Amino acid sequence: MSNDLLIKELANKARIASSTLRGSSIESRRAAIHSIAKAIENNVSEILAANNEDMNRERSAGLSESLLDRLELTEKRILGIVESNRKVASLPDPLGRILKSGILPNGLKQNLVTVPFGVVGMIYEARPNVTVDASVILLMSGNAALLRGSSTARRSNEILVQIMKSALAATEISPEVIQLIPSDDRDTVRALLHARGNVDLVIPRGSASLIRTVVDEALVPTIETGAGVCHVYVDKYADLEMAIPIIVNSKTHRPSVCNAAETLLVHSAISDNFLPKALSELSSRGVKLNCDLQSLEIARKNGITANPATSESWGTEYGTLEMNIAVVSDVDEAIEHIRTFGTQHTEAIVSENEPTIERFIALSDCAAVMVNTSTRFTDGEEMGFGAEIGISNQKLHARGPMGLEAMTTTTWIVRGEGQIRE
Amino acid sequence: MSNDLLIKELANKARIASSTLRGSSIESRRAAIHSIAKAIENNVSEILAANNEDMNRERSAGLSESLLDRLELTEKRILGIVESNRKVASLPDPLGRILKSGILPNGLKQNLVTVPFGVVGMIYEARPNVTVDASVILLMSGNAALLRGSSTARRSNEILVQIMKSALAATEISPEVIQLIPSDDRDTVRALLHARGNVDLVIPRGSASLIRTVVDEALVPTIETGAGVCHVYVDKYADLEMAIPIIVNSKTHRPSVCNAAETLLVHSAISDNFLPKALSELSSRGVKLNCDLQSLEIARKNGITANPATSESWGTEYGTLEMNIAVVSDVDEAIEHIRTFGTQHTEAIVSENEPTIERFIALSDCAAVMVNTSTRFTDGEEMGFGAEIGISNQKLHARGPMGLEAMTTTTWIVRGEGQIRE
Repeated sequence: MSNDLLIKELANKARIASSTLRGSSIESRRAAIHSIAKAIENNVSEILAANNEDMNRERSAGLSESLLDRLELTEKRILGIVESNRKVASLPDPLGRILKSGILPNGLKQNLVTVPFGVVGMIYEARPNVTVDASVILLMSGNAALLRGSSTARRSNEILVQIMKSALAATEISPEVIQLIPSDDRDTVRALLHARGNVDLVIPRGSASLIRTVVDEALVPTIETGAGVCHVYVDKYADLEMAIPIIVNSKTHRPSVCNAAETLLVHSAISDNFLPKALSELSSRGVKLNCDLQSLEIARKNGITANPATSESWGTEYGTLEMNIAVVSDVDEAIEHIRTFGTQHTEAIVSENEPTIERFIALSDCAAVMVNTSTRFTDGEEMGFGAEIGISNQKLHARGPMGLEAMTTTTWIVRGEGQIRE
Repeated sequence: MSNDLLIKELANKARIASSTLRGSSIESRRAAIHSIAKAIENNVSEILAANNEDMNRERSAGLSESLLDRLELTEKRILGIVESNRKVASLPDPLGRILKSGILPNGLKQNLVTVPFGVVGMIYEARPNVTVDASVILLMSGNAALLRGSSTARRSNEILVQIMKSALAATEISPEVIQLIPSDDRDTVRALLHARGNVDLVIPRGSASLIRTVVDEALVPTIETGAGVCHVYVDKYADLEMAIPIIVNSKTHRPSVCNAAETLLVHSAISDNFLPKALSELSSRGVKLNCDLQSLEIARKNGITANPATSESWGTEYGTLEMNIAVVSDVDEAIEHIRTFGTQHTEAIVSENEPTIERFIALSDCAAVMVNTSTRFTDGEEMGFGAEIGISNQKLHARGPMGLEAMTTTTWIVRGEGQIRE
């Protein structure tokens, strides 16, 4: 069977089964998730055995240590997955929420309510926990899941899907709402991205190159997640005591994730005074500094090791302890820098001046603006969403951290008593 | 200059100018629209002369009468445009609306607020009124407009854009927020659809083939508008007196538009009694009937002219006085028919039975469900949006009629006092 036909068949199975989710009660969806959580708890040793198979095969094949770490499941990690599944089940129902409602002059009653997308494809990399996390978030939001994980995690994913399906068999939700797409053929990704009319939405989670493939290839609707070249701008009117821990936290708290900062912009009126302190704090924590001419001079005058930034530096998402530094003449120059090199993810301003803050908010054009706080707070869990399926880096539909609500769309429901249009 | 460079240049001009819209007051946007409306009123004869040029050229070139009618501007039509512009200016500000707000345990205050997309491209066909309507809706929602109209309307569009830009020159909004893309080269459409990073959103308005081109070609985010194969399902528990005018209105009120119904589905328990009346009402209004076997037999027994439906009939958006008729055994068969042949636009049910209505709402998976009323009510003006820029036929971001709010996206604004992530 061609991959196109295979995807169509899996999507069709998922679509038919999703009628057990559309219009299902919140109680039956919660029961289904608890059944999955229990089954995973009861099968830890089986899961660890399958994961061990993946680990051994990939270690022999020379997979890097950092990818092996993402692939690895431990009893503790598995129990963490189960705990977060139960947390998702405890959240309020994202379906059937009335977003707008009104009565028209002709007596028609109209409501705009949240409904599931239908069949949602996930394309993701090594981490097998995504197999369970995504299935549970999609189930809670009434969507069927088409899962395309990494071939490095193939045995782990197979066993996890098998356990989840068995668990669903005893519930009101059809086990067929979860479908695993074979990962041994790269071409199944293309087939999924072309399955227009069969798949309602595809979400890629992974590297920049995966996201680019998805954008270039997709004929189905997608939500782009990903790149974060985030900035911290320290204004002339900043509380400088507050600025230092915000910069350090934004850069060093977890440099590998998308909401870590890559560039520090400092107002020229305070740079001579502020930068020596800020740069030595960063430097003492092992941050490599890539500076524009002005900040480089300040660093050198103060005996702080720094390199000249290259034209590549400003647009690079390092993901490591490396940071760009530039001096700007005012908030508008900071905004222009952000517009040129940013990825519309998260931008932070440290300032006590309200008009400057307002201008930064109005013009920085990003998913989240942080005022006097760390870029690291753009995160579904931190923001109180309970569960996160990704961070959207685009403007259509969902922007920023995506929880259960982002996995719904809307329907207008109009109720009449025979009104017709004159 | 290549078309790719041309689009990049126009988009860049629009983007720079859009900083006068981002963060602009609602008063200054309203004043800009009133200035445009006044200028159009003051230049009616100039607009008519340019439109006359288009009409003469296209009539000689053999453009069809129906397209000539869409191309034509009259004094009355121009004043209608102006009136609707002023109505848009009178609507509430779609920007800066707080959608969510909360205070986190660490004291961070977070708001989710509406913001403009930025630079929005419109691709549309003959009607020159779209040039003004779209510009004004985009301006009111804080977006710059990149307009790619039809070459048949080139002189009309040129003069309208010129008048709007002159009008903006005297306001706080930069005239460069409106950019006209040359329509003499088909390739400018492709260039616009590829302008990733320069254009935030493209909306096509026009034929099915235009929409298909956009879906296949686009690398920029788009909102698909368009096809409506809408159904009316008359249930076993329907008020049959109510059903007839709903069917007739859905089909015949304005058959050329996307919210007109194409197919009537009738429950088998009432078909013998109900169909003779329904079909003769439709037939007497000149509707050509394409029937499945059961309804064909009923039509013929009652001396009503009808044809057998073909396999093509069920998925066709006629846009004319032609309708498909099928008998179904229950609401689930009606839903299955709609799933197979519908376009997720508008589906109507006529029923007095609440569980059946609820099942139809839950499973019909469309932008608008009409309960005991006509499909024709899926319309921004009827639904009270004031202005409509299109009807979205997709699930991402905007679904169904799109007014000013659909032309906005969101930003999280998080305010702290130095909180960092632990």
